[in-house]
Amino acid sequence: MPLVRPYRDYIACLNSRDLSRLGEFVAGDVAYNGEPVGLDGYRRMLERDYRAIPDLRFEVQLLVADGSTVAARLAFDCHPAGRFLGLGVNGRRVRFYENVMYGYADGKIARVWSVIDKEAVERCLSEPSPR
Amino acid sequence: MPLVRPYRDYIACLNSRDLSRLGEFVAGDVAYNGEPVGLDGYRRMLERDYRAIPDLRFEVQLLVADGSTVAARLAFDCHPAGRFLGLGVNGRRVRFYENVMYGYADGKIARVWSVIDKEAVERCLSEPSPR
Repeated sequence: MPLVRPYRDYIACLNSRDLSRLGEFVAGDVAYNGEPVGLDGYRRMLERDYRAIPDLRFEVQLLVADGSTVAARLAFDCHPAGRFLGLGVNGRRVRFYENVMYGYADGKIARVWSVIDKEAVERCLSEPSPR
Repeated sequence: MPLVRPYRDYIACLNSRDLSRLGEFVAGDVAYNGEPVGLDGYRRMLERDYRAIPDLRFEVQLLVADGSTVAARLAFDCHPAGRFLGLGVNGRRVRFYENVMYGYADGKIARVWSVIDKEAVERCLSEPSPR
């Protein structure tokens, strides 16, 4: 599975928040859920995520890869500061998963197809607050 | 990729709605998103889906597999009859994706981790109705 190592290096880059290295892992013309955001747009999206979720951390729970595609189940356990996915989280703890697939071209992520488990976030917010 | 064929046969089974064959593809002790539903529970879940979404059809848009895990991006274009994902769809057309991963054991699906793109369904419902 030759793409496992590049993918884990990409996740390490995201967790280090050293986005000056993002171009080592992500193609200049990357598309996200069908939208051609490009590397700069992808970087701005991550910067927004870091601001919105100060303790954001990407944890790979499952990983499957062949020679051109990677699929991962990412686990999150974090405290978004304000609104998240249209929900007023406001610093509450939320735990949820993202199932995401990546199409690689020339060794870099060229297409991303992501689905975030919004229902899990809603369930977290419907639980009573710890006192 | 030895699991591609069994997985495509499983999807063909779901689309044929011949759930008497489900046990050829799904393990007796299958777990769905961490819940040990078992084959009977899994079958009842599918029967509920067929009732709730009369024109439900599973379309594999992306597929990646190794020797023990399959990941797929499934596309749906359908008309749920009543409520769906907690939303009042009531026969409107919705288009959305499910990113789903499957852990295989002894040639059958033993664990399923699914995330459905609820935000896409919400977007479909916020569009003006065709007249």
